[in-house]
Amino acid sequence: MVAAALLPELWTEILVPICAVVGILFSLFQWYVVSRVKLTTDLGASSSGGKNGHGDYLIEEEEGINDQSVVAKCAEIQTAISEGATSFLFTEYKYVGVFMIFFAGVIFVFLGSVEGFSTENKACTYDTTRTCKPALATAAFSTVAFVLGAVTSVLSGFLGMKIATYANARTTLEARKGVGKAFIVAFRSGAVMGFLLAASGLLVLYITINVFKIYYGDDWEGLFEAITGYGLGGSSMALFGRVGGGIYTKAADVGADLVGKIERNIPEDDPRNPAVIADNVGDNVGDIAGMGSDLFGSYAEASCAALVVASISSFGINHDFTAMCYPLLISSMGILVCLITTLFATDFFEIKVVKEIEPALKNQLIISTIIMTVGIAIVSWVGLPSSFTIFNFGTQKVVKNWQLFLCVCVGLWAGLIIGFVTEYYTSNAYSPVQDVADSCRTGAATNVIFGLALGYKSVIIPIFAIAISIFVSFSFAAMYGVAVAALGMLSTIATGLAIDAYGPISDNAGGIAEMAGMSHRIRERTDALDAAGNTTAAIGKGFAIGSAALVSLALFGAFVSRAGIHTVDVLTPKVIIGLLVGAMLPYWFSAMTMKSVGSAALKMVEEVRRQFNTIPGLMEGTAKPDYATCVKISTDASIKEMIPPGCLVMLTPLIVGFFFGVETLSGVLAGSLVSGVQIAISASNTGGAWDNAKKYIEAGVSEHAKSLGPKGSEPHKAAVIGDTIGDPLKDTSGPSLNILIKLMAVESLVFAPFFATHGGILFKYL
Amino acid sequence: MVAAALLPELWTEILVPICAVVGILFSLFQWYVVSRVKLTTDLGASSSGGKNGHGDYLIEEEEGINDQSVVAKCAEIQTAISEGATSFLFTEYKYVGVFMIFFAGVIFVFLGSVEGFSTENKACTYDTTRTCKPALATAAFSTVAFVLGAVTSVLSGFLGMKIATYANARTTLEARKGVGKAFIVAFRSGAVMGFLLAASGLLVLYITINVFKIYYGDDWEGLFEAITGYGLGGSSMALFGRVGGGIYTKAADVGADLVGKIERNIPEDDPRNPAVIADNVGDNVGDIAGMGSDLFGSYAEASCAALVVASISSFGINHDFTAMCYPLLISSMGILVCLITTLFATDFFEIKVVKEIEPALKNQLIISTIIMTVGIAIVSWVGLPSSFTIFNFGTQKVVKNWQLFLCVCVGLWAGLIIGFVTEYYTSNAYSPVQDVADSCRTGAATNVIFGLALGYKSVIIPIFAIAISIFVSFSFAAMYGVAVAALGMLSTIATGLAIDAYGPISDNAGGIAEMAGMSHRIRERTDALDAAGNTTAAIGKGFAIGSAALVSLALFGAFVSRAGIHTVDVLTPKVIIGLLVGAMLPYWFSAMTMKSVGSAALKMVEEVRRQFNTIPGLMEGTAKPDYATCVKISTDASIKEMIPPGCLVMLTPLIVGFFFGVETLSGVLAGSLVSGVQIAISASNTGGAWDNAKKYIEAGVSEHAKSLGPKGSEPHKAAVIGDTIGDPLKDTSGPSLNILIKLMAVESLVFAPFFATHGGILFKYL
Repeated sequence: MVAAALLPELWTEILVPICAVVGILFSLFQWYVVSRVKLTTDLGASSSGGKNGHGDYLIEEEEGINDQSVVAKCAEIQTAISEGATSFLFTEYKYVGVFMIFFAGVIFVFLGSVEGFSTENKACTYDTTRTCKPALATAAFSTVAFVLGAVTSVLSGFLGMKIATYANARTTLEARKGVGKAFIVAFRSGAVMGFLLAASGLLVLYITINVFKIYYGDDWEGLFEAITGYGLGGSSMALFGRVGGGIYTKAADVGADLVGKIERNIPEDDPRNPAVIADNVGDNVGDIAGMGSDLFGSYAEASCAALVVASISSFGINHDFTAMCYPLLISSMGILVCLITTLFATDFFEIKVVKEIEPALKNQLIISTIIMTVGIAIVSWVGLPSSFTIFNFGTQKVVKNWQLFLCVCVGLWAGLIIGFVTEYYTSNAYSPVQDVADSCRTGAATNVIFGLALGYKSVIIPIFAIAISIFVSFSFAAMYGVAVAALGMLSTIATGLAIDAYGPISDNAGGIAEMAGMSHRIRERTDALDAAGNTTAAIGKGFAIGSAALVSLALFGAFVSRAGIHTVDVLTPKVIIGLLVGAMLPYWFSAMTMKSVGSAALKMVEEVRRQFNTIPGLMEGTAKPDYATCVKISTDASIKEMIPPGCLVMLTPLIVGFFFGVETLSGVLAGSLVSGVQIAISASNTGGAWDNAKKYIEAGVSEHAKSLGPKGSEPHKAAVIGDTIGDPLKDTSGPSLNILIKLMAVESLVFAPFFATHGGILFKYL
Repeated sequence: MVAAALLPELWTEILVPICAVVGILFSLFQWYVVSRVKLTTDLGASSSGGKNGHGDYLIEEEEGINDQSVVAKCAEIQTAISEGATSFLFTEYKYVGVFMIFFAGVIFVFLGSVEGFSTENKACTYDTTRTCKPALATAAFSTVAFVLGAVTSVLSGFLGMKIATYANARTTLEARKGVGKAFIVAFRSGAVMGFLLAASGLLVLYITINVFKIYYGDDWEGLFEAITGYGLGGSSMALFGRVGGGIYTKAADVGADLVGKIERNIPEDDPRNPAVIADNVGDNVGDIAGMGSDLFGSYAEASCAALVVASISSFGINHDFTAMCYPLLISSMGILVCLITTLFATDFFEIKVVKEIEPALKNQLIISTIIMTVGIAIVSWVGLPSSFTIFNFGTQKVVKNWQLFLCVCVGLWAGLIIGFVTEYYTSNAYSPVQDVADSCRTGAATNVIFGLALGYKSVIIPIFAIAISIFVSFSFAAMYGVAVAALGMLSTIATGLAIDAYGPISDNAGGIAEMAGMSHRIRERTDALDAAGNTTAAIGKGFAIGSAALVSLALFGAFVSRAGIHTVDVLTPKVIIGLLVGAMLPYWFSAMTMKSVGSAALKMVEEVRRQFNTIPGLMEGTAKPDYATCVKISTDASIKEMIPPGCLVMLTPLIVGFFFGVETLSGVLAGSLVSGVQIAISASNTGGAWDNAKKYIEAGVSEHAKSLGPKGSEPHKAAVIGDTIGDPLKDTSGPSLNILIKLMAVESLVFAPFFATHGGILFKYL
């Protein structure tokens, strides 16, 4: 009766870590390739030795290769950006450290109190004939898993930021040789980040499970309950990364623009602007470290949600280790698939002209999705029994392996659809953004109205894609299906992150070219790289939100399973008020984050003004501005401003669960999920559309675009206003909502036993 | 065992219609008082005979009383506005007529098909020992009730618009005598609208019930099922009123401003602007007829939801007519309470200075709420048995009369709280709007960011107020409690509408003063009236949204009861996808309505430009513009543009119910409710705040405001951009969402038996 997976347990134990290690090695290899571009002046010439190699294929001519002073300047700027980013991250880590210690204590005390800190073994919750480890052990191991998740996230984010700041100046220098070479450097650096994060996330999770297993033995219920701490750890760090980083990047950006562009009338990325380094640092801490920690959190949470549901399904009850590790096998396969996909961009084909860049990046998504579909089929065939049962809120549901294959696939393909819809609504190659640009003719007001309407409209297809994924996966395999659908969407995370991280690296490269005073042609090349990066950044955001929605639903399901409730009935007062208040939370949270950006930007504006007024010769370029103070102001302001929204996210589940109980908390989670995902998508797309509408007018490539421009025309001014409004929407408040919906769900999951035992005190006494 | 209410059935039968008739008579009396202000030139002098009467108390001096040419001009403009509004409404009614005939057919066929058009009596659904009338009868009577609801709504809206256009010029003329006199005329006209609507809504409903009862006899289950058609009828007309009227008013407003203010640099309400009459017409069709039909719809729906739940509770099962009529008794009491409240504004106190206007209007709300609390206590004491049972999704729940008293009260007071929070966030007397005004210093972008953040923040307290109302009323008396809480909020509807209609009347009065070329001082007086009207308009919108949320939940509950499902479990794929898609619908709908305003405004812009370019002497004031064409363009465009959003609202429940079944439809309703209410509140308040931030800078009453002004300064320009963005948000897309959430719910309720029998075909075949 008990059918096991084809793949023997031993093979699983070997294959998963091998794939993870391959991913890490591949990442290191890419780093090595990038590092061959030398930033030291004496070796600058030797690096251009490849002049007669690949360079010949490129249409563009080499430009200013032998200007050694430029190399030195690039190195200097890069050091400043890298130091600024490091300084921000280390300041953040101080607070992260305090928070981690405190929150680890909360986890231990709350979960330990479930059975009054008893050290006795007890009957298992779902299989009462067995004996399980005490709740105190789960408390201790959850705390350890939490710390491991947090540390892995921090390390991945830090290393990602390091390679990004390592690669930006190198991209600039390679741009002297041509756009193709620069593209490869930027893309490889993105891949370092992507593979490092995906592989280390998998490896640490895998090792943790195996180490915990030594203590837990046959008690898989307790084992995977404890593992959920890993998801919480990863996601808590994403709070700092996404929200703190998001405030940082936009405070610096808006602050730099308000004084530099508007008051002083100097171009973007001008080295005379004291906030210019902070602005470039912001791209790295917000878009690289922030996006990385966000997706890492999603990945860790989806895995934990799948594992905890599997542990109380037949996989767990029958101790079928291979099937239990199905989520990890999917991720392992994902690393191999992304590795092959990467070769398409770096080795199989070569970029020769500018217009090939965007298709090359988009093809990465398509290729990885197609190959991964085959990969999922293989994993589902060898890693799963042909038929098994899945826990479905109190009952067990029979599932076939092909059904689970479909669950993963539907998530994977939904991600691709969301990505392309996002692109359609935010790229200026299509009519929606062009219409928004056109509306600038009648001024900023119509631009804003059309932009908001575009954002609202852009949620329709993604929501249907998510709804169909949920329906298919939920119908086939209950919450386990939803969790693996989320994993399906995230299985190509290495590629997704690579093309996503490519954006800020190119953006920085352009900034460095400007600051180093490089020629107009080089700046044009980096601008071309950057333009493609804008589109992929929008796709990446759509992707992050879509996966956050699935992950959060999976976590919600796992929470409900663990809290021991079998229905969440909208027709009860406890649930409906939770739903209503939950749907309100994204608005509250967005109001906070938008205000945070405003306040932090204001502080930056004051400092930049002060420097322009007090440093003699700054405007003339004879004196250097004090970059470090601006970096410090951005750092301090963003850390301080993230406290209120952070508290809202972290405290809501604890307060609601403790005072109102698990039913109301279920309502809050469901409400914030269904409401938050809409605002997140519309805010990101509205912001992206305004940004690209402005770029469309500036670039003036079509007759229509030319009729709106040039820079400085009335329509362009209206477009700039839209772009500035969109900045906090697309880079702070929108993406931060991912964290809101995921973190509240995973926190509820971890604390579920506590709420089930001690929660709802308000209703107990009323 | 079967306790009955203290009030005998006969008394109930007499008291309800008496209160309704008193309300109508009071309304007619107010109309008579307003009509004593003469608009004909020969009698103009005699109307100023009161010069030595009340006029003496007013601080302002009389101004230009004897200028007969002004009276003639006012009369002329008033006629143009009145004709424009009538022409719009009659065009609308043509479409309404076609729609009504078609939809009445749909109702009859769909509901008749439930039992295959059988004319046989059948066992009742909830009390199977009894015999009930056939489904075909319910289909026929539902159709009749639908038509009656629609006709009542249309008539009330039409008469309200008539009195408003009748009163506007009279208010202008009275403003010559002083601000107090003008206030009274405007306020009395608002009261005509308020009382007419509340009383006729009650009377028609009451008569319908009694006429239907002749056929239905003891079958109250069928009787009140059929009565739900009344709510659907009222609400369908609100779709035309709110959405069509909302598009009309903003298309005219934005169109007039874009050409007049920005291109031609002529002031607002300048008679040379061809769209100026259309703009003034818009205030009447949007804010008077639209708001009236919206609140009438809420009122009819709340009553129907309460009645249908009561009919399957002990009231219905025991045939306790007085208790059954409890919702009608509450409304009857409301009319009397509002009547007394009105006297406070018109007779007990007198407005002497400008600064007394706003408190006088706000006091109306406070007074009516306090007196109504006593009124509810009386009705609950005499109209209810001390203990009874209420249908609670399959079970009966025991409720005490004091609990029901609390349910109604919590709704009533929540309305007041929402009103005051709305005022706090939209009035420029408080810091939120002043902060938004201050943000205009750094340009339009920061103004928009701060305004959006303000709107998001302003949902917090209203949502908690609504959540608490729901929790209390739901816990005490299930969905019946929620329905009577909604009725509690709407019980002071006559006063609410009076102060709400006061706003557009004053606005129009100002426009007429400008167009008639009256002196600056008179324009100042009407501006003072208008400023207070802006605040009450915002309060009214908050009120409309709050009641829509409660009503929609009550309808949702009634739908679920009638569809025969006992739980709406979020943990099922059918419900969760409904919830997610439902939460998306308000975004889709808003995208449509915002785009509609844009397209309609564009057509208006073209026409206004054409007239300025082709009519010689228009700018010099020697030639008259062609107002009628602009009115026609606004009319046609708004009717055409309301089709897509209208279809979305009307078709969604039918498609979802038919293809996906009642569970998914439940999810859609719950999702659109919890998501829509947030967008509606934030959109209205953001728009209101921008409007008043602009007015704050223009008025320049404080040092702070002066530092931002005067008109034409950079901060003022930024504020104007915000105001223009806010126009469609606060007057079209925001308030239209009320209709979305209510209409989908009441439509689902009416079609519930059909969906329960024939719905969900997609899942049946999959």
